Amino acid sequence: MADIPVNKAAHPFDKTRFEALLNRRFFYAPSFEIYGGVAGLYDYGPPGSSLQANIIAEWRKHFIIEEHMLEIDSTIMTPAPVFETSGHVARFADWMVKDTKTGDVLRADHLVKGVLEARLAGDKEARGLAAQPPQKEDEKKKKKKGAVKNVAAVQQLPDDAVKEYEVILAQLDNYSGPELGELCRKYDIRNPDTDNEVTEPQQFNLMFTSSIGPTGQHPGYLRPETAQGHFLNFSRLLEFNNGRVPFASAQIGRSFRNEISPRAGLLRVREFTMAEIEHYVDPEDKRHERFDQVRDVVLDLLDRDVQASGKTQVRKISVGDAVAAGVIANETLGYFVARIHQFLVKIGVDPSRLRFRQHMANEMAHYAADCWDAEIQNSYGWTECVGCADRAAYDLTVHSKKTGHPLVVRQALKEPIITERLVAEFNKKVLGKTFGKDAGVIQSVFADLSETRLLEIQGELAQGSAVVTTPDGRELTLTHEVVTIERKTFKQSIREFTPNVIEPSFGLGRILYVLLEHNFWAREQDVERGVLSLPAVVAPTKVLIVPLSAKEEFNPLIQEVSSKLRKAGIFSRVDDSNTSIGKRYARNDELGTPFGVTLDFASVQNRTMTLRERDTTGQLIGDIDQVISVLVDLVNGNATWAEACNQLPTYDGVQAVD
Amino acid sequence: MADIPVNKAAHPFDKTRFEALLNRRFFYAPSFEIYGGVAGLYDYGPPGSSLQANIIAEWRKHFIIEEHMLEIDSTIMTPAPVFETSGHVARFADWMVKDTKTGDVLRADHLVKGVLEARLAGDKEARGLAAQPPQKEDEKKKKKKGAVKNVAAVQQLPDDAVKEYEVILAQLDNYSGPELGELCRKYDIRNPDTDNEVTEPQQFNLMFTSSIGPTGQHPGYLRPETAQGHFLNFSRLLEFNNGRVPFASAQIGRSFRNEISPRAGLLRVREFTMAEIEHYVDPEDKRHERFDQVRDVVLDLLDRDVQASGKTQVRKISVGDAVAAGVIANETLGYFVARIHQFLVKIGVDPSRLRFRQHMANEMAHYAADCWDAEIQNSYGWTECVGCADRAAYDLTVHSKKTGHPLVVRQALKEPIITERLVAEFNKKVLGKTFGKDAGVIQSVFADLSETRLLEIQGELAQGSAVVTTPDGRELTLTHEVVTIERKTFKQSIREFTPNVIEPSFGLGRILYVLLEHNFWAREQDVERGVLSLPAVVAPTKVLIVPLSAKEEFNPLIQEVSSKLRKAGIFSRVDDSNTSIGKRYARNDELGTPFGVTLDFASVQNRTMTLRERDTTGQLIGDIDQVISVLVDLVNGNATWAEACNQLPTYDGVQAVD
Repeated sequence: MADIPVNKAAHPFDKTRFEALLNRRFFYAPSFEIYGGVAGLYDYGPPGSSLQANIIAEWRKHFIIEEHMLEIDSTIMTPAPVFETSGHVARFADWMVKDTKTGDVLRADHLVKGVLEARLAGDKEARGLAAQPPQKEDEKKKKKKGAVKNVAAVQQLPDDAVKEYEVILAQLDNYSGPELGELCRKYDIRNPDTDNEVTEPQQFNLMFTSSIGPTGQHPGYLRPETAQGHFLNFSRLLEFNNGRVPFASAQIGRSFRNEISPRAGLLRVREFTMAEIEHYVDPEDKRHERFDQVRDVVLDLLDRDVQASGKTQVRKISVGDAVAAGVIANETLGYFVARIHQFLVKIGVDPSRLRFRQHMANEMAHYAADCWDAEIQNSYGWTECVGCADRAAYDLTVHSKKTGHPLVVRQALKEPIITERLVAEFNKKVLGKTFGKDAGVIQSVFADLSETRLLEIQGELAQGSAVVTTPDGRELTLTHEVVTIERKTFKQSIREFTPNVIEPSFGLGRILYVLLEHNFWAREQDVERGVLSLPAVVAPTKVLIVPLSAKEEFNPLIQEVSSKLRKAGIFSRVDDSNTSIGKRYARNDELGTPFGVTLDFASVQNRTMTLRERDTTGQLIGDIDQVISVLVDLVNGNATWAEACNQLPTYDGVQAVD
Repeated sequence: MADIPVNKAAHPFDKTRFEALLNRRFFYAPSFEIYGGVAGLYDYGPPGSSLQANIIAEWRKHFIIEEHMLEIDSTIMTPAPVFETSGHVARFADWMVKDTKTGDVLRADHLVKGVLEARLAGDKEARGLAAQPPQKEDEKKKKKKGAVKNVAAVQQLPDDAVKEYEVILAQLDNYSGPELGELCRKYDIRNPDTDNEVTEPQQFNLMFTSSIGPTGQHPGYLRPETAQGHFLNFSRLLEFNNGRVPFASAQIGRSFRNEISPRAGLLRVREFTMAEIEHYVDPEDKRHERFDQVRDVVLDLLDRDVQASGKTQVRKISVGDAVAAGVIANETLGYFVARIHQFLVKIGVDPSRLRFRQHMANEMAHYAADCWDAEIQNSYGWTECVGCADRAAYDLTVHSKKTGHPLVVRQALKEPIITERLVAEFNKKVLGKTFGKDAGVIQSVFADLSETRLLEIQGELAQGSAVVTTPDGRELTLTHEVVTIERKTFKQSIREFTPNVIEPSFGLGRILYVLLEHNFWAREQDVERGVLSLPAVVAPTKVLIVPLSAKEEFNPLIQEVSSKLRKAGIFSRVDDSNTSIGKRYARNDELGTPFGVTLDFASVQNRTMTLRERDTTGQLIGDIDQVISVLVDLVNGNATWAEACNQLPTYDGVQAVD
């Protein structure tokens, strides 16, 4: 199903034009803009909202519906004890440094990265290695102005330093706070905005705090992830699933992280929409029944060992081979990595700029046993857009321990397990009479005794009496009238276990942003006007209906076409503004609208309609109903444009109507 | 299209059974339940999430798509200056009282309402007027235990008191804090849980507070409504709409209110999903172009005057008549009230338990000029589920004034307006030379002068010089070399105005709850099992596929039916559990699944399938594809069950497969 090729690389990616388009067409904008904005907070306008809603709808189909996941919707506001237990209060923090003179706050790892990368870039330029696209003069100036100050923009580094910097950058996420501080001193890394030195790194907890109720006595946090809402409902979800694992819960919702100094647009924000899956699995059986369906998906992997060696070279490998080789720990983790890959490519991410990077030991969240990030390359570098972590039994275990509520799966064993062991049998009456309130103490002491010690006591009792020591150090003497030790047979017909959790976690705003970057280009003959080649499945509007003019005679046809499309589940918009058809199409190329149909006098007379494709700008013509039927197949992904070209004749009379 | 009647009132509404069903099937549950829960926070489980998602999807269709509204998605976290300007910091508060001994906090109006209603109920019972459904003994006991303590449960009141109480309750929302305090003293209203007196009412601001960024210097609030996010983006939205009004923005999202003492389940929560529309309209033209489409919608209205007279009698009136009579202020407000009515009825709210109540003067939010609430009757009383307010130009005006950013519409006038007036013309050079930095002061003094005063100055200047007074009281003497006063002609070809805003605002959790209550019933012959008669459009699962057994031979058919339904956009679930078909249907009646199809040996042999309807439990039979085609029409609301019964023969062999 080869499609018709279009030269989208005629102009290199132009970030200034790209950002201008997103801003002008209100894909998104800084929140509270008229109040001066707040770093890390953005509002989505109509096309951005719509794109986000379509990504979410596709996510629901691809994951929740396809795999019968249990969707939930839990609250953002969370009482403090939950995050105390989960470890977030103690450990969900980033390292920050302060400018020693201005007090400006910077994130330590970002500071090191920014300065070292800038120095390497300056070195490359000094060596004449810079392979930068030609820039206009004013853009160059802009870049200089914002450039890192305490690094001479063009300055050659010693060969050793280049190597050292590259090794540091390759494993940057692996450094602890004190180590980052050491790097700042060793390499004289300062605040690039002021050239001042920075303080030692300190931890800053990323959770927003609040207080629940009118008394001020109940501290709360805004969740930094939706995951805890899944875990706390685990028992109910398990019951809903008739007590069986594996199964998954899913949730789409807002989360909050009080980022130290957010600067990278939608890629680092303080409030964001996530989509998270918690897949509960038997820790002793992490196979996945649908693994065969993804076995051959080929991925770009960047594993822990490669990074530790200071390199960033990915290897191409199928999921099946990666799991077989132990690079990816188990089938379930591999299954989700592959499904994430399929989802991202389906909605329009360029697969050649997508890799899966394994977390390094120090980098891993406190709850994770293993983690692979889907990283997507964009103008800011490689950005984590999806995390796929194996949280093991961490969360369910800590919450269960804290609350006393068992968060376990109970499974009937096919064959019961028979065991024998020594047990202490008390004569409760005598025990109570003899030891009063120490009776309970004695019982709990015995419960903790080893088989060997019980055997000794059995012997001592046979000789008259045995002595046990209480936790507070008192020695109590017991006789066989109080306790006897016997060997008993136990039959276990239920297996009880805490499931492990595999967690694919999607940052939808980041995905939305890289999607826009990957799909932005300009036509060879028109660098001014951008085109967003969003796949129909996520495009905010699928079809633009363009009447030749706002004349009333077109209204019945507009109604007919838009209502037939709506009936087929396709969202269209009418553009009856007072400009040329060509301009109207160009304006909608900016919004990513994949198809357009034109209604003109021929439509009124002969019931014909032209159909235009966004990327090729090719036009076809046909009977209105025929065009609608082709359109429905195109939008639903059941036909390519090349195929449509075989079904309908080419229309070349564009000049006549324009 | 009359449908087949079902006796849903065979058993009176049984709240205990209703709540047990919602809890058991995990429609929703207290958040952080295993930590003991937090008042006013709830999580939705799978059926609740799905019901909520379907209500939202239908809302999007009914409002956003149908009326081409501009959807946005703005942040929850909001810097303090925004809510200082909007008036929420000063005025978004409830009155609370404290128990004088325990310090327990109660919301003042709820306290008064609860106690007076309980006394009236006790009075009714004492007079033998209580028309309560018979209750089981243990339920009666439970009720007594939780009953209000400082009101003898059964005690007759003086006739005067009954009347006074009724008048107070009818206008309860109209009382200020001090007035509520007075009521507590006058009627000896105490904390019902302890019988202790309560303090004077104090204001408590309902916004959750937080802090943005690592320095603690930027206070923030969690939005209590999504509206401000619309208003702050007004200029961008207007531009997106090519500068034209009327248009509407819409947003679905989370909001937060730190309720004082939430106790009514989903009806009063601290975190909730809202859907809000801000419809921007020319203040001089509040007609609505689609008003004719709703003119004949008949509503139950409870206007301000009726309430002020101490009554709660609604009047049935068409929207057209209500607007014509000035009961509803204008067409746009009336249009949305009618559209809200249509939406609620479409998703399953009982229209006989739906009324629109106008806010009384003291009750209105600080920003509102008029407001009608859609109130829905349920076991807690009449509950506001949708507000429809005319916010006039309040918000746009205050934000514009505060930020200096004009939030206005500029409209080309068909005929320019010609005006004449006196203006001061300065000789800037001389002015600067003579007065130095007072030059600016003088210009702004002149800008504020009245026509009369300018005329006087004109006369004085003709005589030599004129004296003006600066804001700080100095007198400055000017000559005609510095300034001249002339009459000039102005042509205004642009009209600039701040639009008014009509705001329909939906509390989705409340709607979800009353929907469940209105659709819960039990079959005549089986009071134990509940049925939720949710309309197909919102039902969590549309079709249940029930294979006779889990035998593998049914798998290809299950796949076929579920894939054909999915292709038609219909979400089905398979129940292949090991219980009788009757039990599986009953279990899904509890979840509100409207249709079920059974696959048995006849299906495998003859490709027939039975179709079962939830409310009537009637069953039809037909060829698999024929049944699917009928099902699609049923689910999409294009056919009633009665019509389906005409298309397919009745199946009466239920015993054979059960």
